[in-house]
Amino acid sequence: MRKSDKSLREKTMSLLVVGSMAYDAVETPFDKIEKALGGSAMFFAAAASYFTRVNLVAVVGDDFDHDDIRFLRQKNVDLQGLKTERGDTFRWAGRYHDNMIDRDTLYTRLGVFENFHPLLPEQYKSSDFVFLANIQPDLQYNVIRQITKPMFVAMDTMNFWISGAPDDLRRTLSVVDCLIINDSEVRLLSGMYNIYAGAKVIQEMGPKTLIIKKGEHGAILAHKDFYFACPALPIEKVFDPTGAGDTFAGGFMGYLAQTDEINDSNLRRAMVMGAVMASFCVEGFGADCLKALTKESIKKRASQLMALIKVDADHQWLIAE
Amino acid sequence: MRKSDKSLREKTMSLLVVGSMAYDAVETPFDKIEKALGGSAMFFAAAASYFTRVNLVAVVGDDFDHDDIRFLRQKNVDLQGLKTERGDTFRWAGRYHDNMIDRDTLYTRLGVFENFHPLLPEQYKSSDFVFLANIQPDLQYNVIRQITKPMFVAMDTMNFWISGAPDDLRRTLSVVDCLIINDSEVRLLSGMYNIYAGAKVIQEMGPKTLIIKKGEHGAILAHKDFYFACPALPIEKVFDPTGAGDTFAGGFMGYLAQTDEINDSNLRRAMVMGAVMASFCVEGFGADCLKALTKESIKKRASQLMALIKVDADHQWLIAE
Repeated sequence: MRKSDKSLREKTMSLLVVGSMAYDAVETPFDKIEKALGGSAMFFAAAASYFTRVNLVAVVGDDFDHDDIRFLRQKNVDLQGLKTERGDTFRWAGRYHDNMIDRDTLYTRLGVFENFHPLLPEQYKSSDFVFLANIQPDLQYNVIRQITKPMFVAMDTMNFWISGAPDDLRRTLSVVDCLIINDSEVRLLSGMYNIYAGAKVIQEMGPKTLIIKKGEHGAILAHKDFYFACPALPIEKVFDPTGAGDTFAGGFMGYLAQTDEINDSNLRRAMVMGAVMASFCVEGFGADCLKALTKESIKKRASQLMALIKVDADHQWLIAE
Repeated sequence: MRKSDKSLREKTMSLLVVGSMAYDAVETPFDKIEKALGGSAMFFAAAASYFTRVNLVAVVGDDFDHDDIRFLRQKNVDLQGLKTERGDTFRWAGRYHDNMIDRDTLYTRLGVFENFHPLLPEQYKSSDFVFLANIQPDLQYNVIRQITKPMFVAMDTMNFWISGAPDDLRRTLSVVDCLIINDSEVRLLSGMYNIYAGAKVIQEMGPKTLIIKKGEHGAILAHKDFYFACPALPIEKVFDPTGAGDTFAGGFMGYLAQTDEINDSNLRRAMVMGAVMASFCVEGFGADCLKALTKESIKKRASQLMALIKVDADHQWLIAE
């Protein structure tokens, strides 16, 4: 990859997200909420909107709150692809264990999301960057087919599709650049316990870049040419981890879409911004935490993360013979 | 802490380790061995010997292999404090689960280690750096009492003492500078699930510096003034994790003991060297992996670890208003 002195594109690239908009009922050991703003596309778009213009494809029911739509509009998210259908918005309810990682799903009510068949508005078909949130792999594939000439396509998936729709998933994997999943999904998909060995197996399936999310342990960028270990910010009170993965993806893709090229340096910086945005997400319930961030608060966390991994690089290591 | 341009002390500080020498029988999902060189003091001394002169206090039975003693002598480890007693060397047998973290102890045969009461040779009493490996907290305390004026005392401990000898442990904690334990031990000792919140609770007990080991996820240095997140090197085949924690401690303390002062920069570099030495440890059975490392192989891994966390620091983060 060619290094460049410029770090920003002359023209910001368009970033498309296809996923869910939802309301979640969440219980943690600390607190609970009946109706938190959620859904993969919501978390992603909210995070990415701080960096670039987002094209959103999703569906909500006629019970969806206008204030939440207004927030996206204010953040300059393009809503041509957001359909409102008669019926209920997707609802998920879950209860987190004490470790704030494992969780039990209490119910999933798909509502209007059950018949979600993403059709891209004409204007979205020229999107440069694409994030396919966790939906059926065949729907993800159909989205990619609608895009004329994508520059960088990233996708999420989950155990349900890895086990339940392996052929569809393999077809989708074969045409994406980047897969963003957690460490247990890497193990399930690759059949390898070791995540680095697993990453190589998955890269052979298609995506040359793999982002392995590890919750409080941060995330690993496994590119075919290099690794980057990005820690999570030290958050003393994780309030609600729901959506942190999609928020990470939003920070990552949003930041990458405004850089001048996809190279080693910019991928690393985009990872840092993914971790920064995820750190805001876990501090409260739902996507509301992402609504009123300031440029200064984001920059401050980026500096904190840089300080977390700082080691003097000009150091001569002294070792006995 | 004052920064210094020099990174090395004019006179190398003496580093004392008090712990066990053992032979381990280890089973992993991949392989097994009947007799691997082990023990906390063994792993620690082997790792630290690449950086500084080590004073060793331990006990072995008359069945201990002379070749293993010879190795320590060759590495310039001071063995005045190594006692050989009539009887069997400490033996531990364990079987690792598929995740290569959880393990079942198959047996523990203390042998001569059962009556280990570390008495320091006169010359060791002026040691500057001290590592108290995982032994009874009251024995650790008695070692500290024998040292005239230690500069930096670090200790390990385990769930057995946290639950079984809490008062003794608190007394020892109150007089050390650094505690090196794993994340589940942080949770048990602090009563907090969140490791950053737990670190603050533990710092109130005495040690201002806490090193939280997280296996494949690396280690966190939680100092009262800053955090450093040190990743583990990407090892595609973890062969045997036994001793990796003590090896990390050996790399960390050994490196720190040869720097000019205990400050932010040097603590971070010492963490890197801890992770580097641990990466060699997990690649084979027992402490034999640490016997024949070269200066070049250690430097190479240090560079690899630096590349793993490299982000251009002069970057202007671009964020929308």
